[in-house]
Amino acid sequence: MNTNFQRILDEIYEETLPLLGQGKVASYIPALAEVNPAQYGIAIQTLSGEAYQVGDANTPFSIQSISKVFTLTMVFGRVGEALWSRVGREPSGNAFNSLVQLETENGIPRNPFINAGALVCTDHLVSLASDPLLNIRNFVRELSNNPGVNFDESVASSERQTGFRNAALINLMKSFGNIENDVDEVLNIYFHQCALMMNCHDLARAFLFLANQGVNPWDHTRILTPSQAKRVNALMQVCGLYDDSGEFAFTVGLPGKSGVGGGIVAIIPNQLSICVWSPELNSRGTSLIGMKALELFTTKTGVSIF
Amino acid sequence: MNTNFQRILDEIYEETLPLLGQGKVASYIPALAEVNPAQYGIAIQTLSGEAYQVGDANTPFSIQSISKVFTLTMVFGRVGEALWSRVGREPSGNAFNSLVQLETENGIPRNPFINAGALVCTDHLVSLASDPLLNIRNFVRELSNNPGVNFDESVASSERQTGFRNAALINLMKSFGNIENDVDEVLNIYFHQCALMMNCHDLARAFLFLANQGVNPWDHTRILTPSQAKRVNALMQVCGLYDDSGEFAFTVGLPGKSGVGGGIVAIIPNQLSICVWSPELNSRGTSLIGMKALELFTTKTGVSIF
Amino acid sequence: MNTNFQRILDEIYEETLPLLGQGKVASYIPALAEVNPAQYGIAIQTLSGEAYQVGDANTPFSIQSISKVFTLTMVFGRVGEALWSRVGREPSGNAFNSLVQLETENGIPRNPFINAGALVCTDHLVSLASDPLLNIRNFVRELSNNPGVNFDESVASSERQTGFRNAALINLMKSFGNIENDVDEVLNIYFHQCALMMNCHDLARAFLFLANQGVNPWDHTRILTPSQAKRVNALMQVCGLYDDSGEFAFTVGLPGKSGVGGGIVAIIPNQLSICVWSPELNSRGTSLIGMKALELFTTKTGVSIF
Amino acid sequence: MNTNFQRILDEIYEETLPLLGQGKVASYIPALAEVNPAQYGIAIQTLSGEAYQVGDANTPFSIQSISKVFTLTMVFGRVGEALWSRVGREPSGNAFNSLVQLETENGIPRNPFINAGALVCTDHLVSLASDPLLNIRNFVRELSNNPGVNFDESVASSERQTGFRNAALINLMKSFGNIENDVDEVLNIYFHQCALMMNCHDLARAFLFLANQGVNPWDHTRILTPSQAKRVNALMQVCGLYDDSGEFAFTVGLPGKSGVGGGIVAIIPNQLSICVWSPELNSRGTSLIGMKALELFTTKTGVSIF
Repeated sequence: MNTNFQRILDEIYEETLPLLGQGKVASYIPALAEVNPAQYGIAIQTLSGEAYQVGDANTPFSIQSISKVFTLTMVFGRVGEALWSRVGREPSGNAFNSLVQLETENGIPRNPFINAGALVCTDHLVSLASDPLLNIRNFVRELSNNPGVNFDESVASSERQTGFRNAALINLMKSFGNIENDVDEVLNIYFHQCALMMNCHDLARAFLFLANQGVNPWDHTRILTPSQAKRVNALMQVCGLYDDSGEFAFTVGLPGKSGVGGGIVAIIPNQLSICVWSPELNSRGTSLIGMKALELFTTKTGVSIF
Repeated sequence: MNTNFQRILDEIYEETLPLLGQGKVASYIPALAEVNPAQYGIAIQTLSGEAYQVGDANTPFSIQSISKVFTLTMVFGRVGEALWSRVGREPSGNAFNSLVQLETENGIPRNPFINAGALVCTDHLVSLASDPLLNIRNFVRELSNNPGVNFDESVASSERQTGFRNAALINLMKSFGNIENDVDEVLNIYFHQCALMMNCHDLARAFLFLANQGVNPWDHTRILTPSQAKRVNALMQVCGLYDDSGEFAFTVGLPGKSGVGGGIVAIIPNQLSICVWSPELNSRGTSLIGMKALELFTTKTGVSIF
Repeated sequence: MNTNFQRILDEIYEETLPLLGQGKVASYIPALAEVNPAQYGIAIQTLSGEAYQVGDANTPFSIQSISKVFTLTMVFGRVGEALWSRVGREPSGNAFNSLVQLETENGIPRNPFINAGALVCTDHLVSLASDPLLNIRNFVRELSNNPGVNFDESVASSERQTGFRNAALINLMKSFGNIENDVDEVLNIYFHQCALMMNCHDLARAFLFLANQGVNPWDHTRILTPSQAKRVNALMQVCGLYDDSGEFAFTVGLPGKSGVGGGIVAIIPNQLSICVWSPELNSRGTSLIGMKALELFTTKTGVSIF
Repeated sequence: MNTNFQRILDEIYEETLPLLGQGKVASYIPALAEVNPAQYGIAIQTLSGEAYQVGDANTPFSIQSISKVFTLTMVFGRVGEALWSRVGREPSGNAFNSLVQLETENGIPRNPFINAGALVCTDHLVSLASDPLLNIRNFVRELSNNPGVNFDESVASSERQTGFRNAALINLMKSFGNIENDVDEVLNIYFHQCALMMNCHDLARAFLFLANQGVNPWDHTRILTPSQAKRVNALMQVCGLYDDSGEFAFTVGLPGKSGVGGGIVAIIPNQLSICVWSPELNSRGTSLIGMKALELFTTKTGVSIF
């Protein structure tokens, strides 16, 4: 592998900067719509301890759906294979917040990365933890090795006021018996996890355990078994980018997870994790520049899992 | 990697043989229904030239949908990115022969591995080749390094007499303008490619170019560019096993392609290809023993792309 | 028309009584599941002032979806054609509480008799009335000429505790901007209107204005214009019995409305209204005996709108 | 009823003529696309023997889906209730040529007036008749009392060359076992029945048996039992105008059947039949002027089945 990462990041940044203005910032909640669209950063964290960056890599942003990897990990690590009786492991082939699939498949979401599946994970967590919010926050702080990570209450509150589709999803699942707790309580936790504020470095560090066979590289605690870590990576590969999952596998070829805040995190097993952030989204809700930057990264470094 | 492949194959064979009888042979055409269900073989072909096998690895079987990788490769190699205006690269989230998706997405199939997408590839080939059948046969003979590979006319004829759903798919796409040639002609080629007879060794050899950056290891001709080869692997990873694609990624973690004849081929980039054949299928149309054997293979060898 | 209604009702009763035990009482809420399934009554009310009955025609039951005709009438009478920008007038072709149609058609329900469409009417009413519950109760008391009609709070409360699918529907519509008021408030009114307790005579009287060109026969007030009354009848004809609408038109041939409490009301324009109640439902949620009784009624009297 | 029909027809004609140019002639086959859009006629035929007309009521046009009433009648009259095991009686809630419903309901079309259901009727007829084409032609000649009615071979041929969606529908049903005969043979008959050329008078006369309790008023032969005739009328009411069925019931309130050639026929039980023809269609494939003319007709005469 070409390890001249700094030069490569600089090249990618220069080549993709002209794409600014071609996407659209998420507008469904005020707190996201007000983000300055011209921000753009990348951070790399290697298992050997090096960190690289370019642009606004130190600016915290709303991680949104990237948080689904954290709650999935928390629940999968505790309940193991039992999780799969309540959520599937197949790509959805539908928009991330579709009710159609859920209705025809009796309230069992296709996978943990569509909203419905993530709500099932959060519901699991509510059943398991005495203080789920504190639990999530501490978990992400440890993974990112940053005790300052926190929720943005204005984002969480904004989500709650407009999250009618998520309320529809969770009520539908509750009607099928696939939600154990009070729907409002689960929604509250869910809206908070989506409102975690992290920067590119935080996220690159926080995903590194998935490139490290499931071990947190910062405190050497085991988060997942090697087999479980591989499986989370496989899930990210197959369904981590909603309707762009196939496109991402095709053009980037790495396991990754996106959020409508404009972040995308990807990992190269046994080597590194990389986080790109640019709030302007393509028509399928993925960071437009983020997609392109990661495609250039694999092209320029020659890395790929295939 | 643990390279004691022969011992591992023997172990896998012994451990999975008790599963015989738990699946069901494909019954939709007589030619497949009559296959002896108790057959089971595995073959490995490494890039360094070694071959391993266990069980009925020399018995030819009907490769069925595995043929879609061959026609995709033939067309992708010739028309390149232009292919993607007529077929998508996203997982389907529906059964492999569903018309629903096709209708709601204006006749553009989700990917080249569902039947509709494969029919588009075959239609492309009919437009490109003067004798498409000869073209396919010769291509597969070269890839498998076996000049004896041929179609089973009784299987092809059997498919033609019962292939009403494929006729529905291609007529629907024709109504959307996404089929260039006569529907009966394209169906005839398609039914023949599915009726190719190959054994586990043939298929392991024929897929090795995908582990070899797109170069045919037998005659050193370039079949696909390295980038194209990676992309075919990514497609197999995300949608090579129909409704079992997520499950396969999750439990096996390799790019692969299955057929209702009971074969599954998978590759480990830069190392090897492996083909398992057992005609008994699970409820989603995948070889039941084949899935388990490949899961054991990655567990025992420790290989995974993740 | 054969006007020997009493003899005909007696015959119908005798011929259909053996069907008791073939259907199933609605079980989704305790308050309905506990109803004695062996109850069965019919009442006829003619425009010329005669009333006929057989069986348990004086026993109040939960009218459930029959209430949708009342709220539709209240709203249609006040807002007129403007209603149709928020709810359609086409049969749904799907189960009465399906989210699929709603999602693909941007939150506009197919018609006012599926749950989603009825929720839109109730939301309209909440916008229009200072005390919607009182408004509904008084309206139904006037139509039925029975000041004793009331809500069953235990049924309303039972609905609220298990009505997750209705919560899903209304949240989905809210996400599309098709609900003006607070979802919990609208749901509360909706669960109450479904919990109205009326007997066969009450309902036969309350529907008579639809056979009377829109004029309440008890106090001669105009409820709807003649044109509006015809149109409500047309809607009942085309979509009043959910997935049994075609079957009901085919075998009965009258405009009607059913509820999962086991009631069905139908009208013969310019002549009469008839209400049958038997709590045992067929597989599509319609009173099994009710359907058969009404088929016999039109056969024996020779009436039909066709 | 106001029986000054001639004055009413003249008024309707004058009031609706300004709508010319607002719709679009069906363009899917050349033979229809070339029709002069400015043609417009109405004919009324009463059971008491009077005929009225305005405009181009003597110009033959392609009856298209109106033919489905004829083949349904032929088959229903011969096989009776047995028909309903292969085709439903419920509104479809989907576009008339949708494959989605057919796929999810195992190849059983929702009703005989969507294309799939009509193909089942035609297949039935192919099983029953030694010369189905001759059989249909003679049947329609007798009903319309016009021995000159014939197929337009250029329309039939045009349909055959572009009817890929109908080919998709019939192949899908064949895959479910719901088509008995060769798909090409059934399609050929179907394309011919749609290509019948009739004028407004022909169609008004040909539908009069449905207003006459099932008896052909021209030769007094019984075509359907009174009960069967009512049921065909009920089906037309609920699903005769595809996605406009609810709208038609709501605004017109009569049983009717439309075709993409621009014709609509409706009946008033025990009184008359009326046919309007204007080739310009609204966005749902119904004659734009035809809909409006029939709405005015029921408004001006005060007739309605409700």
